[in-house]
Amino acid sequence: MKIAFVVFNGLTTLDFIGIYDPLTRLKTMGFMPDLEWDICAYTDIVKDDRGLIMVPTAIQEPLQSYDVLVVPGGYGTRTLIHDNNFIEWIQTAEPCKLKVSVCTGALLLGAAGFLKGKRATTHPSALQELTPFCQTVLENRIVDEGNIITAGGVSSGIDEGLYVVERLAGAEARSKIAKQMDYPYTLRPESVAQ
Amino acid sequence: MKIAFVVFNGLTTLDFIGIYDPLTRLKTMGFMPDLEWDICAYTDIVKDDRGLIMVPTAIQEPLQSYDVLVVPGGYGTRTLIHDNNFIEWIQTAEPCKLKVSVCTGALLLGAAGFLKGKRATTHPSALQELTPFCQTVLENRIVDEGNIITAGGVSSGIDEGLYVVERLAGAEARSKIAKQMDYPYTLRPESVAQ
Repeated sequence: MKIAFVVFNGLTTLDFIGIYDPLTRLKTMGFMPDLEWDICAYTDIVKDDRGLIMVPTAIQEPLQSYDVLVVPGGYGTRTLIHDNNFIEWIQTAEPCKLKVSVCTGALLLGAAGFLKGKRATTHPSALQELTPFCQTVLENRIVDEGNIITAGGVSSGIDEGLYVVERLAGAEARSKIAKQMDYPYTLRPESVAQ
Repeated sequence: MKIAFVVFNGLTTLDFIGIYDPLTRLKTMGFMPDLEWDICAYTDIVKDDRGLIMVPTAIQEPLQSYDVLVVPGGYGTRTLIHDNNFIEWIQTAEPCKLKVSVCTGALLLGAAGFLKGKRATTHPSALQELTPFCQTVLENRIVDEGNIITAGGVSSGIDEGLYVVERLAGAEARSKIAKQMDYPYTLRPESVAQ
């Protein structure tokens, strides 16, 4: 299994790292020894919304060969939803079996057409912006449409990451990874729309 | 006020980003408009414990001019506590008014001598490794010694970041930043040793 973590200029890094940490522990803690991932971008270098510079491992590579697509949010999304080249690149992820967004990453999944006819969520301040891209905007912390999962704002990526861990590797893996992350909080069942 | 966020090879990025997000919002959300920060490293490039590459903004710069020092953890700390050049660089932060660690970042503060005679905490799996560096190892999520604050494992950096936000800018800033981070969890008072 191979994960594409998408990054871009103006992302909120906690959106990305909150889900990157639990998912990559599937490999480092031995639950999925063959798991691989790339940090995927359309630009050579990426600067987050507060100045942190990251170097992608895959640049403008088509995304169809990945099993899982992970898209974080941040103010950069407001420009990128109108950037045809970027959105066409995101659209190459169409065959990915699982597409996941954190925060306003949902706007990018939406602009790529992946949320058509689906329920979705995003940062509480961006619910209205998400409306044109999906069937129903929900305010749950996680909205699970099977092959596409969206989450609320910034820190919700940690809960979503642990939720995806459980789907991919079971409840025991989730529990052990949360413990190693020293994460004592539990997603309330009513926070998830399935 | 100026913050030094220290990064190094083999860091756990969520240790760093979990506290970077709330602290930098002090500026981006207008609570401390003059706040500045650097991403400080001893090497030109930093690779985290799972392959993510970051580019520091300040390399081998002495740290004494910063007001706040923030040190994350990760497996890289186990080598770095024996790296005299690196530890001497961390020691240049001695005059910083507030020193903060997340996870095994406490081992680096300890190796630099900053925890002598103090109570401190770290990742639950590294409590014993911390013992030689401080007076008492505690298992609280946050241990506040006034000018030095240590936290538990990985995700505890978010709680610690919000705790420091409240100290620097008050309870209303903390509440608004947590809301913008979509972080619904509250640190229990008994989790903090003061």
